[in-house]
Amino acid sequence: MTQSTYPKISLKDIFTQAQALIDATSAKNITIATAESCTGGLIGAAITSIAGSSKPFKGGIIAYDNKIKNKLLNVPAGMISKYGAVSREVARAMALGAIEALNVDMAVSVTGIAGPGGGSGDKPVGTVWMGLAVKVDGKIDVTTKLHRFGDIGRNKVRDVTCYEALRALVKAAS
Amino acid sequence: MTQSTYPKISLKDIFTQAQALIDATSAKNITIATAESCTGGLIGAAITSIAGSSKPFKGGIIAYDNKIKNKLLNVPAGMISKYGAVSREVARAMALGAIEALNVDMAVSVTGIAGPGGGSGDKPVGTVWMGLAVKVDGKIDVTTKLHRFGDIGRNKVRDVTCYEALRALVKAAS
Repeated sequence: MTQSTYPKISLKDIFTQAQALIDATSAKNITIATAESCTGGLIGAAITSIAGSSKPFKGGIIAYDNKIKNKLLNVPAGMISKYGAVSREVARAMALGAIEALNVDMAVSVTGIAGPGGGSGDKPVGTVWMGLAVKVDGKIDVTTKLHRFGDIGRNKVRDVTCYEALRALVKAAS
Repeated sequence: MTQSTYPKISLKDIFTQAQALIDATSAKNITIATAESCTGGLIGAAITSIAGSSKPFKGGIIAYDNKIKNKLLNVPAGMISKYGAVSREVARAMALGAIEALNVDMAVSVTGIAGPGGGSGDKPVGTVWMGLAVKVDGKIDVTTKLHRFGDIGRNKVRDVTCYEALRALVKAAS
């Protein structure tokens, strides 16, 4: 594994972000959902570890397989074959798909390469695209962000991805 | 919290079951999916913590809100209002909904009361209904199981639910 400059994230850090998210969204009546690929449900699990999460959190779609990204999140199959599942375009479409499918105010999406295999030259292990879709005045704003966590190990990539997804939601809700 | 007779489950026990599941399903080309309510993504997260999980695991639906159980898993709204979200009927419908929505050979569903609140006389905290749907000779077999873990704490209820869901999948795949 190559060294990462990403700071160490503990489970406690993740739960702290999840609590902050439930507090911020509950206070403002913001509803939330998730669309997860590489984290496989971890973001939803972190959110629902918090008592009271059922008020803002409606649910999520774990779209591990590309066909599920297409079928349940409405990501065009041609987009996946053109840009790859780990791409800005697919992260954007996943976040949009989640906000539509789950009818929420805000949705986060993640698609990345957790490893140990599956990396390539321009998309090494630790590459994660994140999407954040937010309803604003009846329209949906989507932003995307590229993370390069490095080859820090499968479960560390997933943990920091979860942490960053929660952080993005907290920021958008605050 | 009342005492539980359920044995202690560690994260290592969960990962061991997840590894056994990936081994068994990969060897037999069985595809799997999840429909989670009270665990909120934990089962999917445990499965995808294992390298190689993308072969059998297609994805899942986190149906935390009852409207999502209806919309994405096709659980009839009238069934939820008649029997309650934590019921044999809803667990059964969720497992069936997952096998259909994700087009897999096998799906597990969980719906329960993790606490701290939300319990009632006949459905105290720690009550979890589990459903297991398996395609056999072109037909779908569904079995359900009631767990009563007791009021052992929100995250312990979720952990043991995750463990039992993985165990049910492993057994069905073996």
